[in-house]
Amino acid sequence: MITGKNTIGNQSSASGTATFKTFNPIENRETPWVFHQATTDEINQAVQLATEAFQQYKNYSGSRKAAFLRAIADEIAALGDDLIHTYIAESGLPEGRARGERGRTMGQLRAFADLLEEGSWVEAIIDVGQPDKQPMAKPDIRKMLFPIGPVAVFGASNFPLAFSTAGGDTASALAAGCPVVVKGHPLHAATGELVSIAILKAAEKTKMPNGVFSNLNSSGITVGQELVLHPDIKAVGFTGSIAGGTSIYKLANTREVPIPVYAEMGSVNPVVVLPSALKEKTVFWAKQYASSITNGTGQFCTNPGLILGVKSGAFDQFIEVLGQEIAQITPTSMLHPNIFKAFEKGVDEVVASQKTTLVGAYQGEAAPNQGKAKVVTVDAGVFIEQPMLHREVFGPYSMIVQCENDQELQSAIASLEGQLTGTLLGNADELRNKAGIVDALKEKVGRLILNGVPTGVEVCAAMHHGGPFPSTTNAKHTSVGVSAVTRWVRPVAYQDWPLELLPEALQNDNPLNIHRIVDGAHTAKVI
Amino acid sequence: MITGKNTIGNQSSASGTATFKTFNPIENRETPWVFHQATTDEINQAVQLATEAFQQYKNYSGSRKAAFLRAIADEIAALGDDLIHTYIAESGLPEGRARGERGRTMGQLRAFADLLEEGSWVEAIIDVGQPDKQPMAKPDIRKMLFPIGPVAVFGASNFPLAFSTAGGDTASALAAGCPVVVKGHPLHAATGELVSIAILKAAEKTKMPNGVFSNLNSSGITVGQELVLHPDIKAVGFTGSIAGGTSIYKLANTREVPIPVYAEMGSVNPVVVLPSALKEKTVFWAKQYASSITNGTGQFCTNPGLILGVKSGAFDQFIEVLGQEIAQITPTSMLHPNIFKAFEKGVDEVVASQKTTLVGAYQGEAAPNQGKAKVVTVDAGVFIEQPMLHREVFGPYSMIVQCENDQELQSAIASLEGQLTGTLLGNADELRNKAGIVDALKEKVGRLILNGVPTGVEVCAAMHHGGPFPSTTNAKHTSVGVSAVTRWVRPVAYQDWPLELLPEALQNDNPLNIHRIVDGAHTAKVI
Repeated sequence: MITGKNTIGNQSSASGTATFKTFNPIENRETPWVFHQATTDEINQAVQLATEAFQQYKNYSGSRKAAFLRAIADEIAALGDDLIHTYIAESGLPEGRARGERGRTMGQLRAFADLLEEGSWVEAIIDVGQPDKQPMAKPDIRKMLFPIGPVAVFGASNFPLAFSTAGGDTASALAAGCPVVVKGHPLHAATGELVSIAILKAAEKTKMPNGVFSNLNSSGITVGQELVLHPDIKAVGFTGSIAGGTSIYKLANTREVPIPVYAEMGSVNPVVVLPSALKEKTVFWAKQYASSITNGTGQFCTNPGLILGVKSGAFDQFIEVLGQEIAQITPTSMLHPNIFKAFEKGVDEVVASQKTTLVGAYQGEAAPNQGKAKVVTVDAGVFIEQPMLHREVFGPYSMIVQCENDQELQSAIASLEGQLTGTLLGNADELRNKAGIVDALKEKVGRLILNGVPTGVEVCAAMHHGGPFPSTTNAKHTSVGVSAVTRWVRPVAYQDWPLELLPEALQNDNPLNIHRIVDGAHTAKVI
Repeated sequence: MITGKNTIGNQSSASGTATFKTFNPIENRETPWVFHQATTDEINQAVQLATEAFQQYKNYSGSRKAAFLRAIADEIAALGDDLIHTYIAESGLPEGRARGERGRTMGQLRAFADLLEEGSWVEAIIDVGQPDKQPMAKPDIRKMLFPIGPVAVFGASNFPLAFSTAGGDTASALAAGCPVVVKGHPLHAATGELVSIAILKAAEKTKMPNGVFSNLNSSGITVGQELVLHPDIKAVGFTGSIAGGTSIYKLANTREVPIPVYAEMGSVNPVVVLPSALKEKTVFWAKQYASSITNGTGQFCTNPGLILGVKSGAFDQFIEVLGQEIAQITPTSMLHPNIFKAFEKGVDEVVASQKTTLVGAYQGEAAPNQGKAKVVTVDAGVFIEQPMLHREVFGPYSMIVQCENDQELQSAIASLEGQLTGTLLGNADELRNKAGIVDALKEKVGRLILNGVPTGVEVCAAMHHGGPFPSTTNAKHTSVGVSAVTRWVRPVAYQDWPLELLPEALQNDNPLNIHRIVDGAHTAKVI
């Protein structure tokens, strides 16, 4: 039963008069529910409760926070098919994707619970004091990571579960010890409400402080802006467009006290096709990429929007087969009419530039809001000179850049902006012999993939889902995998503190049995 | 022999016509040398050389970079007393400080060399692939830290060696694999030239690429601004005032591609005096603090500019003794007439506010540019309401805040801005019983000190010299200790890469014998 209300701590609230509805892109009509946009008072209440909750929550043990995260996963599971159906109604995504994303969301929560129970993530570093050292005593210094305070999380349009209400940003912030205020994405407010209820149930069952989580409805930009500017919000997590993420980043820097904004934004995810891949597997890769380009109607941040190669007969064949494959892929629904229109407009602009040639496109009929896949090609010389062609077109689209030689290929890569991923199709000999190309790609990306597709991001400790600007606002941090927890913390060092009053992670007998750096040595030993 | 020229890679250069001189504050006159401010062409040359050098330098092994850092330390030592005399002439600081800071500077370089040779700082995380995993293969993902590119370092007025040309920012950036372009501090350009020559000799001896280091002279703000805005500069290190650091931070955010600015700025380093400290050691602490406040003529970023306590007879006695001690401390020279004037102005403004009462001041004669120590006191109620009284006054000055009770003490702490350090004088029972006060202080600072003085920053792995804004622009990072290296790197993940082509740190047989996280376990084992 969707109420359309905001979740302010453990209360439902709908004090505002501004309302909005979500949209079913497959039925091409609004969903039945009416959502109340959060008012300034409700925003302030949510942040105040989060600030109060932080005073307790920050001191909870890893195992206690882990129990909360596991309970959230369990409560999401308990939502059952109601969640799946709501997700599908608001996103137009297929049931398999809904179930898969739900599984990933629960898996992420449990991965952070594991991380907390293991405990070493706090990066304890200890330099034991030497009071008798000559000519001066050496103080005892011990540092570890501590949570920074309430975090604002912006839900993402393309991941109603895994990058939204209880997604990676929320899970990592709660793991760090930071209460979360979610600015729900307007496209899936009902999905968000269901997940919020699950989080609240989990919070109640595991006796978390009131305010550890709030969910605010919002159809425009003002709720997000007020959150970012609220003096008690200490950091922001965002997944979305370059325009949206950059404006939030800049807004946060206008504050009297600037705060970090971890925005994961746009990426065209360049794919470099080397000769051996064409020689051995032209058709295989063409089919793989037709599938990757259209996966999820192309609405992934790791969608391969750019394919680069050196002109050759084999590359021509790859392009031809890819075009044929693309033409045969049955369109699927995009998330919203506005996203569909932006996709069409983006493709039209590229075609209207008269710099590109069509390689393949679905030519049949399509229902409203279904994105027809399209692939175009362009000469590298033109591509390098035209920044417009570098832009991401969000949807089932890719551009093939044809280079005269390896040197031009390297120049085309060097002309790119920062990217989440870069992919090479080729063999080990080529990686060795074309080190300049590999290195140029590495400088632009956060993840280097060999002989695969960029879509499909493994959730694991070694994953880095982040790259140079504008793919993110902070290339040091990832929004996927347990390393994401480090976005919401800062170190504090204790100097000459009574050993028995130190946090457990810094005590001599290492009661948490965690990995630490003690006097320069990596160890889990007691001191 | 000081030439007054810029160091652009391995060349000296003085193509500009704008010149300036440094100043001997003890002799109260200019030093004999004439420095040529870097021109736009020279800035561009330095950055271009750094960009070219990065292509090689970033791939150098840890031991090779370590040899370079050690050679820099050796060449600084080889400058001998010439460096010491130049340092003293340009700073007015005493010889003991000059030798101590030189030792610290060399020690820092060698500590980073040790870190590189140990090798685990790259934070290798490996999730081994499972190609046969059902229902889908699990990719092999391995990530580690890589350098980001040329770094601009701004020299600090108050540390001509340890936070300037070859100071912590430069040492950590070179350790990370990033070439450095220093914007020398105008107050000690000759010291900077000598150190630059040492770095160049070391670079030559250890066969580093041309451009791995450059040093630009600058008397105004334009050289720094051009550097920060140069598209090939990838990060900035700064130590100095809040106004200076904030303006650089904001400037870097106006770039088409924003870059991180690690600015260590102002701090008043609150000291909380608890009853037991007064009961047991009133005179001891009063003397310790008189010394700490005036150490280095108060020109340390960790100078105790704020002392807070609850009103009592014992606190009155502490204040009285501190005032008497301060009155007896012979003035010493400040770094420059402008810094002296700013100190006098800052103190005058506090006194003129008529909110404070003088506790103690040196009343005797003083030579030009010598800072006369002064301590004032104010009621906490007034302090909390007056942000002007929270400002750092750079020099031998401190303000004692007198609170009615513990609650007001906690409120006074909560009213503070972010700080590098916070100190408590007291015993373990008090830390337990006054947890609210301890926690309030912890939320504001990067380092919590018990029963000590904030001046004197141990250079070690566990040190955190960083705190919430405005003490720094990024509370996650330290500018002291080997953790500082993480400012100049970002992770890159390799997916399904040929094992033999991975960087050594990520290879199965762990040839560097470093600590890694493999499939979730902390280990130095081979895979």
